[in-house]
Amino acid sequence: MRVLITAGGTSEKIDDVRSITNHSSGRLGCLIAEEFLKNHATVDFVTTAQAKHPAENKKLQLYEIEGTQGLADQLQELLQKTTYDAVIHSMAVSDFTPAQTFSQEDFLASINHLFQEKKVPLTKEDLTQLTDRTEVDEKKISSDTEQLYLVLKKTPKVIQLIKKIQPETLLVGFKLLVDVSKQTLITTAQAGIGKNQADYILANDLAKIKDNQHIGYLIDKNGQIIGEKQTKESIAQLIFQTIDRHNT
Amino acid sequence: MRVLITAGGTSEKIDDVRSITNHSSGRLGCLIAEEFLKNHATVDFVTTAQAKHPAENKKLQLYEIEGTQGLADQLQELLQKTTYDAVIHSMAVSDFTPAQTFSQEDFLASINHLFQEKKVPLTKEDLTQLTDRTEVDEKKISSDTEQLYLVLKKTPKVIQLIKKIQPETLLVGFKLLVDVSKQTLITTAQAGIGKNQADYILANDLAKIKDNQHIGYLIDKNGQIIGEKQTKESIAQLIFQTIDRHNT
Repeated sequence: MRVLITAGGTSEKIDDVRSITNHSSGRLGCLIAEEFLKNHATVDFVTTAQAKHPAENKKLQLYEIEGTQGLADQLQELLQKTTYDAVIHSMAVSDFTPAQTFSQEDFLASINHLFQEKKVPLTKEDLTQLTDRTEVDEKKISSDTEQLYLVLKKTPKVIQLIKKIQPETLLVGFKLLVDVSKQTLITTAQAGIGKNQADYILANDLAKIKDNQHIGYLIDKNGQIIGEKQTKESIAQLIFQTIDRHNT
Repeated sequence: MRVLITAGGTSEKIDDVRSITNHSSGRLGCLIAEEFLKNHATVDFVTTAQAKHPAENKKLQLYEIEGTQGLADQLQELLQKTTYDAVIHSMAVSDFTPAQTFSQEDFLASINHLFQEKKVPLTKEDLTQLTDRTEVDEKKISSDTEQLYLVLKKTPKVIQLIKKIQPETLLVGFKLLVDVSKQTLITTAQAGIGKNQADYILANDLAKIKDNQHIGYLIDKNGQIIGEKQTKESIAQLIFQTIDRHNT
């Protein structure tokens, strides 16, 4: 069996010294990798420099990325080269990336100019145009302003690449919410299945992740909860067993 | 001799899963700590979970912080409790912290509303008022919008706390710029001396920091360059020797 696992969290550059970072220790991803390795699978593991890395292993190959674009490029390369039985995409991927940074002065001038030009309520297109005008090209943003306006644009949905390139692979997606009801968590995760062509989604809530506890629900493509676990170790085992069942 | 050293880079929370992080490996700060420890000083070391930590030592005490406010609180506590011969403030501190996040829809509505109310070119005060209206209280910002508008406000200047509490301590500040001329770097660092009541500033340029190279200029309170070094190790030694000279 050969699997591709992503873990850790992406960082999107604001300038040469600052990034927006999605926090993820990468610990669950490591445990999943170790579970597959223990069961003689070959693992390609995509992670970040900051995240925890699995112990070295002859059947483990590591790939490090930083931002969402780097992740998309790396996955594309791997998925075009190698056929995977499953892709377990546990990395916390940034939904937004910096498009433009304005000092308070520049932002005010741009907005006032836009109003003079348009003389009507502004539309979304006006705003998008304003912030698309130039690309981020800052070495280090000057701190000589009272406020900074950071405009972020959506990143492409990396998870949706996976089945486009390998429709036959089994895809396990992850959905993390923060302090919601179990019902909201499950419903949100279910909604992600069709959109991302996932075969399974592991739904979890940051408020229920602490110390040795990590509550996770594994949902299949029919939206059924097929497992509920309380620790990272048992989530890792459940994911391995679920994928392994398809291969036997 | 007893010194307080800060190292690493602060992270400012956007929500429970995202932060703006100032990158700093903390390696130079570690070398500075080790140089003082080798010379029998006692070191209080303020850093972050992500940064490199110095090797354990009986005369070394570690304190971990995350954001600028946490750093200010920690320094205040230490400076009120202990008298230091010197404070070496190498931590990369965020100049801005998230004040408010808007979806594109909410931002557009707020801006249009402001224009209807004011019917004149907007002023800085209008913008500040708009973004001060509510505090950031997001658990996880929804990704259901094309753009996010993140408004950042200035953080208090932590370095200026130090001499306010301990006017007698020797303060070594750090100035990092990115890819500027030596002249600009030195002039900018000199300007920081009076403002922050620093006794010395170590000026460095990210573009001149790679592999084993780390070019740094140590500037004294008269604005004179009293040393120019090429590696982290020699910068650490220069800082120790400079402080030590005051104590003998």
